[in-house]
Amino acid sequence: MSSSRKALAIVLAAGEGTRMKSDTPKVLHQVAGRSMLAHVLAAVAEAGVETIAVVVGPGREDVTAEALKRAPHAQTFVQAERLGTAHAVLAARAAIAAGCDDLLVLFADTPLVTGATIRALREALAAGAGVAALGFSAADPFGYGRLLQDEAGRLVAIREEKDASAAERAIRLCNAGLMAIDGAAAADWLGQIGNSNAKGEFYLTDIVEIARACGREARVVVADETEVLGVNDRIQLAQAEAVAQNRLRRAAMAAGVTMIAPETVFLSADTVLGRDVTIEPHVVIGPGVSIADKAVIHAFSHLEGASVGQGATIGPFARLRPGAALAEAAKVGNFVEIKNANVAKGAKVNHLTYIGDADIGANANIGAGTITCNYDGFFKYRTEIGENAFIGSNSALVAPVKIGAGAYVGSGSVVTKDVRGDALVVARGRQMEKAGWAASFRAIQAERKAAAKKS
Amino acid sequence: MSSSRKALAIVLAAGEGTRMKSDTPKVLHQVAGRSMLAHVLAAVAEAGVETIAVVVGPGREDVTAEALKRAPHAQTFVQAERLGTAHAVLAARAAIAAGCDDLLVLFADTPLVTGATIRALREALAAGAGVAALGFSAADPFGYGRLLQDEAGRLVAIREEKDASAAERAIRLCNAGLMAIDGAAAADWLGQIGNSNAKGEFYLTDIVEIARACGREARVVVADETEVLGVNDRIQLAQAEAVAQNRLRRAAMAAGVTMIAPETVFLSADTVLGRDVTIEPHVVIGPGVSIADKAVIHAFSHLEGASVGQGATIGPFARLRPGAALAEAAKVGNFVEIKNANVAKGAKVNHLTYIGDADIGANANIGAGTITCNYDGFFKYRTEIGENAFIGSNSALVAPVKIGAGAYVGSGSVVTKDVRGDALVVARGRQMEKAGWAASFRAIQAERKAAAKKS
Amino acid sequence: MSSSRKALAIVLAAGEGTRMKSDTPKVLHQVAGRSMLAHVLAAVAEAGVETIAVVVGPGREDVTAEALKRAPHAQTFVQAERLGTAHAVLAARAAIAAGCDDLLVLFADTPLVTGATIRALREALAAGAGVAALGFSAADPFGYGRLLQDEAGRLVAIREEKDASAAERAIRLCNAGLMAIDGAAAADWLGQIGNSNAKGEFYLTDIVEIARACGREARVVVADETEVLGVNDRIQLAQAEAVAQNRLRRAAMAAGVTMIAPETVFLSADTVLGRDVTIEPHVVIGPGVSIADKAVIHAFSHLEGASVGQGATIGPFARLRPGAALAEAAKVGNFVEIKNANVAKGAKVNHLTYIGDADIGANANIGAGTITCNYDGFFKYRTEIGENAFIGSNSALVAPVKIGAGAYVGSGSVVTKDVRGDALVVARGRQMEKAGWAASFRAIQAERKAAAKKS
Repeated sequence: MSSSRKALAIVLAAGEGTRMKSDTPKVLHQVAGRSMLAHVLAAVAEAGVETIAVVVGPGREDVTAEALKRAPHAQTFVQAERLGTAHAVLAARAAIAAGCDDLLVLFADTPLVTGATIRALREALAAGAGVAALGFSAADPFGYGRLLQDEAGRLVAIREEKDASAAERAIRLCNAGLMAIDGAAAADWLGQIGNSNAKGEFYLTDIVEIARACGREARVVVADETEVLGVNDRIQLAQAEAVAQNRLRRAAMAAGVTMIAPETVFLSADTVLGRDVTIEPHVVIGPGVSIADKAVIHAFSHLEGASVGQGATIGPFARLRPGAALAEAAKVGNFVEIKNANVAKGAKVNHLTYIGDADIGANANIGAGTITCNYDGFFKYRTEIGENAFIGSNSALVAPVKIGAGAYVGSGSVVTKDVRGDALVVARGRQMEKAGWAASFRAIQAERKAAAKKS
Repeated sequence: MSSSRKALAIVLAAGEGTRMKSDTPKVLHQVAGRSMLAHVLAAVAEAGVETIAVVVGPGREDVTAEALKRAPHAQTFVQAERLGTAHAVLAARAAIAAGCDDLLVLFADTPLVTGATIRALREALAAGAGVAALGFSAADPFGYGRLLQDEAGRLVAIREEKDASAAERAIRLCNAGLMAIDGAAAADWLGQIGNSNAKGEFYLTDIVEIARACGREARVVVADETEVLGVNDRIQLAQAEAVAQNRLRRAAMAAGVTMIAPETVFLSADTVLGRDVTIEPHVVIGPGVSIADKAVIHAFSHLEGASVGQGATIGPFARLRPGAALAEAAKVGNFVEIKNANVAKGAKVNHLTYIGDADIGANANIGAGTITCNYDGFFKYRTEIGENAFIGSNSALVAPVKIGAGAYVGSGSVVTKDVRGDALVVARGRQMEKAGWAASFRAIQAERKAAAKKS
Repeated sequence: MSSSRKALAIVLAAGEGTRMKSDTPKVLHQVAGRSMLAHVLAAVAEAGVETIAVVVGPGREDVTAEALKRAPHAQTFVQAERLGTAHAVLAARAAIAAGCDDLLVLFADTPLVTGATIRALREALAAGAGVAALGFSAADPFGYGRLLQDEAGRLVAIREEKDASAAERAIRLCNAGLMAIDGAAAADWLGQIGNSNAKGEFYLTDIVEIARACGREARVVVADETEVLGVNDRIQLAQAEAVAQNRLRRAAMAAGVTMIAPETVFLSADTVLGRDVTIEPHVVIGPGVSIADKAVIHAFSHLEGASVGQGATIGPFARLRPGAALAEAAKVGNFVEIKNANVAKGAKVNHLTYIGDADIGANANIGAGTITCNYDGFFKYRTEIGENAFIGSNSALVAPVKIGAGAYVGSGSVVTKDVRGDALVVARGRQMEKAGWAASFRAIQAERKAAAKKS
């Protein structure tokens, strides 16, 4: 494709999505950790489209905000009434009027479309077509518009199910909705679309016959059915998620990641995974995670907004929250939560621990049951633990507090004041024993229990 | 269907289930959190059946108990010998003798049958049939009895695989076993069933030809194959569970629940889920759970016997046990167990905590590592935490104990006595430091370790 | 098969596996908890093969070590250059020269082959065949060599895709690669294989035509496609894992194990499961685990190197690490880690606990939040807890330490010295209260927070 062609993508994001049964607008529902709208905007960017117009429903500031967050230079337009797809496209009339070579129409509820497919639509225009429609071979074509082709494979018309003859219904090549239109002619053709049909709506699909009547060719670009899955309810949302996850998993495995049970591992669209990373079954990776080469993510781990260094091991049953940064060969074990904390090279946090708002030095060892007490109900404070420090089990470190390098905290301590490097600190009660007490206690309680049962 | 028709359902629950290889009787094995027998009794109730007879094997008090627990007005009958399905039905002879319009025969090891299907069988009787048999189109009919129909679609006979001609074997419509019989004629027809066959058993399927010989019509009601799946071993039990889970998941999604990965979410037959609830991957919901609108259940959560208020968030890695009642906007985080406790509006229990037998006031904040010490080896005691209280991390609250509203418990405290509202309580050791101790300790231990390696 | 026949298995393990994109040699990648090479060696042993030769790539001491670990009497040979399968087999020339009745050629990257299939290949030789090739009916034969048979079903030749006629390409019976060769003739025939082909390599498949030219019959043994899956990349590795897991799950269920959602349960090749064991969804069982009758493994549990006694219950959210040995009716609950520890009959470790290097007596009760402090940064020490002891919640037991039988540890104690039987021990701070402190604190902090927001 000549890079000199200028493209405008109009992303239709005004659908009400009543079948979602949700207070959240449909296009903000998420797939692989980001909104459906964001997926479409990412694909558009990947296809080299410079100008983006997003058409939103009235009063949908949340959709507008997401559009601008994901594509800061996008223009947004409001479709006040809902009078069909062509009407929705014309809500962006001002953007169309500004002129372009390739006018692309996409749907924010068709989130799996790839940049490569959008490029293929553009290539059809560059090769001379006036209109290029995206089609797919449907496993069950019932309900879809059929793409009618002539013997040369040119697109003749898009026929709705209800208007189709028996022969046309036998066609499995269906309309995905996405379309590319010659930018020079688009305003004219869109203006010709009428609404003399049962519903009184303006259908974008009419543009095929209009372009042909103007002597221009219409073509079909074919995509896989999974790529053009439209999301109208939560069942389809889950299907789209499944397709997206399978793509992410296969790409990761192809690049050298071991997944014992990929079907139980959930990634995000932005997950970065190094070579020879191993991910055991039952792992959830939210947005903003990068994992370096040779790291091992054991089963039942949950990561988001975190970085994992080379050769580090996580889990099982570990949770890395945003701001967790683990250096090379760090180790985070079971029932451990790390939040907004740096864990330096070779440091170990093996069991039942909460590390929040902290810096843990290289090769430090954090005992089981350690808690950084980082919050007083109003503010959060940091804990600093020096390299080679040893935190005895079941200790509470009351932030702000510093444990010096090489210091040793006795088990069960509550540390409220800074500890010097290489020092021992103990902060716990003295052990007192009452001989025979437990035997008497058991006798008394057993009697009470027996009495309680009788009554 | 005329509501004036009276129905008797005979549920056959006497099968030995040897292929289950279990000490638990087959029909008590569970699907979606309740026994297979309970599923069938629920479907029977849903179909408006008033009278229920359950036929159990000799000595199976556990099956009888489950039947009466799920259908308190059911009559139970013992089938002493195992002489075929008609013989099993006749174990409930007394119930049949009491008279009914619709006699329904169901199988407790066919747990997925729906009330709608049972109603369809009844409707066939109401429309004049003497017998209605439930059929399904088998993907692989081998081994099933075939339903032979005349050119008008009437049921002519049920032919066992081994007795079937080649043409009959080509029939894919198979016998599911469930049947509806005209109640007025049932006793007569059942009495005519003989046992002159290879096994010397009395087969209920013979009733089709007997009814026809009496001039009555037999019909077929068709169900989906998944609905009539019979469970004979644990592999089939897992298949039934999969069908049941898919039904529950689809119903939830259709009603406005987001499931990112429905195939990893396990519900119970009685799970109640509100609108815009989000359930992340890898969640298990046992019996007795209700979750209100907009609540979020994060990954790796396990709930049973619990209620979750509107907008509350749970997990990841949270466990709600029976009696956990979370109010609106409550928050239960990672590695937290809640049992028999009320967590009031906006209260937070974010990390590594055990809350058992407790009341937590509105907006209270329970620090990481808090343990309610509710058990002394004999009795359980309650912990009461007032609203806006702040429990410092790693504290132990030794019940029975009350923490007043707005009180503040210092980190690492062991609280054994009640704390007044708005007070600070601290119960921990004093911090003592020995300079340089850790450095010496390391030197000594390193030497010992080196010596140990040599020897 | 006559047990008098002597077999030599040559396992080809020299493949580079570049498509794995891994620093680990391909055949050491794991399926169901053991290397692919180990799987093949296990199948060979199961088929009664006495002599094993493993052909490894140059400098692959790690592969040699794994071969000798899994088959201590195996001979290993290095294939210095990569000149085709026949060349690889001849790397083991010395083993072939020692003589055998059945020469078997297997591939370490085809890990799912069963002992039964290897026996079937041997039986073909015992019945007179000179060569027996393993075939499978391919769902999509493209790219595989086709097995050409005569009208009597004898193998005529193995035709590579690129050399196949259109008719031959229509054949779905494909070459799995595994082969059995008459040991008496093998050296002669292997020596006749040439390399006059496009790649200049020596192909083992040529042996079929050579054997026939010598007047010997070649046969086909057919296996299921899943059994001969070759692993060349991580996607295929995951597919092999899925096949292996399904086999393990089905075998377990058939033997009387309930799996509510078998697709979420991961076993190892050596997992031992008793009758009436229940495994809930989302469970991972690593190598070295045995679980006795009637034990229940709740959801989200992770076990490796552990034994679970009869009727014991584990999880949800429990981790048993190597050396965890739970006796009958022991109970390990949520967020509990057990490592290298014996938990005697009826003992309970219900919540948020780390037990490492310990012995817990019968019916002891370990309270929530208990930590055995077993490590001082250099050495590990044991904790001994007597029978019927009661460890109060949130206690730290600093090993080496002994808690006598029937002793009672007060909640929140840090126990550093041995406790006598039936004694009470308390080791914690005294409770001190400051009235009104929290109210003042809140006022001050709220003011600071407001000030911080303004600035």
